Amino acid sequence: MGEAWESYGKGREPKYSIRDGIVAELYRELEKYRSADYYPFHMPGHKRCAGAANGALSSGYGLDITEIDGFDNLHQAQGILRREQERAAELYGAAQSYYLVNGSTCGILSAVFAVTKRGDKILMGRNCHKSVYHAVYLRELEAVYLLPEVLDGKDGWGFGIAGGIEPAAVEKALKANPDCAAVIITSPTYEGVVSDVEKIACIVHSYGIPLIVDEAHGAHFGFHEAYPVSSVRQGADLVIHSVHKTLPAMTQSALLHWNHWNVGSAGHLSRNRDGAGQCLADRRRVERYLRIFQTSSPSYVLMASVSSCMEIVQREGRERLDRLLEYRNDFVQRIGKCHYVKIFGEEEPGQPAGRYDPCKLVIGIADGRMTGQELYDVLLERYHLQMEMAAGSYVLAIVTMMDTEEGWNRLADALLEIDDGLFNQKTDGQRIRDWYGPRGCGRRQIPQPAMTIAEAYEARQETVALADSTGRIAAEFINLYPPGIPLAVPGERLTEEMVEAFLEYEKLQLRVQGVENGLVRVIKV
Amino acid sequence: MGEAWESYGKGREPKYSIRDGIVAELYRELEKYRSADYYPFHMPGHKRCAGAANGALSSGYGLDITEIDGFDNLHQAQGILRREQERAAELYGAAQSYYLVNGSTCGILSAVFAVTKRGDKILMGRNCHKSVYHAVYLRELEAVYLLPEVLDGKDGWGFGIAGGIEPAAVEKALKANPDCAAVIITSPTYEGVVSDVEKIACIVHSYGIPLIVDEAHGAHFGFHEAYPVSSVRQGADLVIHSVHKTLPAMTQSALLHWNHWNVGSAGHLSRNRDGAGQCLADRRRVERYLRIFQTSSPSYVLMASVSSCMEIVQREGRERLDRLLEYRNDFVQRIGKCHYVKIFGEEEPGQPAGRYDPCKLVIGIADGRMTGQELYDVLLERYHLQMEMAAGSYVLAIVTMMDTEEGWNRLADALLEIDDGLFNQKTDGQRIRDWYGPRGCGRRQIPQPAMTIAEAYEARQETVALADSTGRIAAEFINLYPPGIPLAVPGERLTEEMVEAFLEYEKLQLRVQGVENGLVRVIKV
Repeated sequence: MGEAWESYGKGREPKYSIRDGIVAELYRELEKYRSADYYPFHMPGHKRCAGAANGALSSGYGLDITEIDGFDNLHQAQGILRREQERAAELYGAAQSYYLVNGSTCGILSAVFAVTKRGDKILMGRNCHKSVYHAVYLRELEAVYLLPEVLDGKDGWGFGIAGGIEPAAVEKALKANPDCAAVIITSPTYEGVVSDVEKIACIVHSYGIPLIVDEAHGAHFGFHEAYPVSSVRQGADLVIHSVHKTLPAMTQSALLHWNHWNVGSAGHLSRNRDGAGQCLADRRRVERYLRIFQTSSPSYVLMASVSSCMEIVQREGRERLDRLLEYRNDFVQRIGKCHYVKIFGEEEPGQPAGRYDPCKLVIGIADGRMTGQELYDVLLERYHLQMEMAAGSYVLAIVTMMDTEEGWNRLADALLEIDDGLFNQKTDGQRIRDWYGPRGCGRRQIPQPAMTIAEAYEARQETVALADSTGRIAAEFINLYPPGIPLAVPGERLTEEMVEAFLEYEKLQLRVQGVENGLVRVIKV
Repeated sequence: MGEAWESYGKGREPKYSIRDGIVAELYRELEKYRSADYYPFHMPGHKRCAGAANGALSSGYGLDITEIDGFDNLHQAQGILRREQERAAELYGAAQSYYLVNGSTCGILSAVFAVTKRGDKILMGRNCHKSVYHAVYLRELEAVYLLPEVLDGKDGWGFGIAGGIEPAAVEKALKANPDCAAVIITSPTYEGVVSDVEKIACIVHSYGIPLIVDEAHGAHFGFHEAYPVSSVRQGADLVIHSVHKTLPAMTQSALLHWNHWNVGSAGHLSRNRDGAGQCLADRRRVERYLRIFQTSSPSYVLMASVSSCMEIVQREGRERLDRLLEYRNDFVQRIGKCHYVKIFGEEEPGQPAGRYDPCKLVIGIADGRMTGQELYDVLLERYHLQMEMAAGSYVLAIVTMMDTEEGWNRLADALLEIDDGLFNQKTDGQRIRDWYGPRGCGRRQIPQPAMTIAEAYEARQETVALADSTGRIAAEFINLYPPGIPLAVPGERLTEEMVEAFLEYEKLQLRVQGVENGLVRVIKV
């Protein structure tokens, strides 16, 4: 393992220098073209003209072209898009990077399809995004689940957040299932908990199979030493980034990074610099599936957004991430004076650096004086602060390199005021059990599938009341949204505990997909 | 068939009135929200703030939110998105319509998946978009091909354009393959030729199976009597529209329309108004696949674009389409004076109205004095007029309701000047054979697949010179781009004629996907 360890990317110089010093080439070329006198007899139908769009939309229409001369083709990139993708690869330290326009979703589908054949076995985090489960369904894979740890915070005061995937758990699972074709995990989690990808990659590679990391929430990793290192430089074969989540890029824009590790003779892992030999992840296959799962007419506006984002990261990224840390420290200090408002991870000063992503704020109220949804609602309605998500016992805020001091102050002020108001409030101290994450299905057995997802989809189904659904087989995914992590998978039998939790979520008024008006779809008996 | 004929939509009043008189609700709400004082602690990471984007991108960022309160969720639409989709359905005359953010591609994948099970047989136009072939691959369907007619124009002077699908061909194919699960055709074609969807729908429904129409290029149909009628009102069960192609909406935005036809007792076809009974296309299944093939974070900017587009169509659509016809008539009259420049469809004044889409201009040069690519290049380089596509012997221009008089005049002026210049040019009068469309594979047998697409993808492959590839089995799709219609499908044996055509395309410098630097991927022997 020692040799492999050294091969991985920590501290490695980029293979290429940032060779041409050009930034945001695509964005700039589109701006230039927009001002030129070319008349469009091609799609899109708005023809970049006045009156084609209202207000805030209209200037973007000026950049909205199709694959005309000089603007390359995302699905066969040979010119400007190839260069932009190469620059992204250099920035992140990948062998190759791909611009995505159908979210991390299409990157995940493509990655899983690229490394598997129909019916293969795949080791996956139970807390993986729904798109991984969709890939399992489409590819008819047999899923073996890894359960993340559950993090409770100090004094057992439970946030009940899903933690990282432990390398030992990966080792154990692969030992028991040596015929796995690939491994896929989500790191960081939605709440910003990072797994030890380097150790996991080592273990996975020792079985001669590839590691995919859904790093959707970590596109900002690697640009500042106080932030986690990116999976791209920790040995992962395929890494998916939602640049739109934590970086300044438009929704739906993402990146897929590919590394060319291969396992040579005698299990010797080496970086396949010239592309020869059998890569653990076949780049050609990845490209094939990207063409399938993405529109044949990708948006130049979305791509320009990635291009522009890469420039901001290069020019100002480190400085802005540094400033974020200052704001965060000030914020944490102020909130430290609260009696009830707690920030996850800040009660545990001994945590190893890099384990948590500073871009996530998990904020809860001690002793259950307020539910997550209640806190979310007060912040929104009284203070006009829109959080990312409400869970049973906390809210999640995403902070990025683009947040202003004003924004941070508004949030701190609001929380201090709320904290004041709670001082006199009575409470029965009952902790709100949080099913979000694996708590309900993590400390016990994961429900055994009664049938595969495919079988569940093709079976006859019916709608029943959630309250009457214990023991029935789920016909659809059931998950909170956000974050879209399945709590029940089609084909799994709904346990009493799961049904109780879903009923509680409905009561807490959290958004539960798969449950509508107290009804669920199940397999007809 | 009489009863079914009357059930179809021609002249039918919308099921609902345009009930609330609200237009572009989503767009307007986003604009209002943008100006309000809510601070975002959610994705996207640009936080709608200054400095997050350059120039023309930045105002769009103000509309770029995620599924926050009041803005619904595309994958479980219950509020503003449900209303917007209902309005689109009313506008088009569909039972239900869905906003798409991953192009017509995801609509096609979802439609095919919804109406088939793995291994089913499907009847499809050979000239269907690549995404149909991808669906065939993913679903492991057995494809039975329908060959479109080839249209040559007057005097045998050949444009060699793919025509419509003849109802008789559908009848014949279904008779020979009564076990087909569904039928899918493309209408209009890329060049704007429309099939008789109403007749075809009747035939298809008489077999108790659904009809899917890829009407990507016809989202503007049905809003003016001189334009073709939409497939939505001609009996199709699922219709896909790329609103971005011919309407003022952003690239990647599209619509999927669903109709609830069902076949009752004794084959009686009726509109399933209350949703009871077995619909030919199961809406729930459609929705499931839309969730799979689209990002879980759809862009509100793209959706706002559709919302805004629907308003323009409602308020100004007919008037603008009328003006387009005036511009087109003037244009055709001017070009009528040319000696060499020809516009397809305009040499045949007896053509039935509605057979060709006025929004397409297929322009060629008689006697092969200029190839399509040469004409395309001159128009671009000398006149700064960017065409949609160059084929072997013609160019394609897309004109829409947003084109200006100035644009039309620039094109007419340019063509007249080019025509003048050709007067003295020598030529050997050799016609350029056009493989685009089915000519090469339509007048003869379609190549028999040596293996399925899936088998070809999983087989060992190698790269060979195109010139040496006759008799080898294609490992990848080979198609011109645009329009992305496969000329060779993975698993098919490359014939001498096909290879000759591909070599000719390369010589003409057309963009051939699947051929790179004179090399192709084939199955290893």
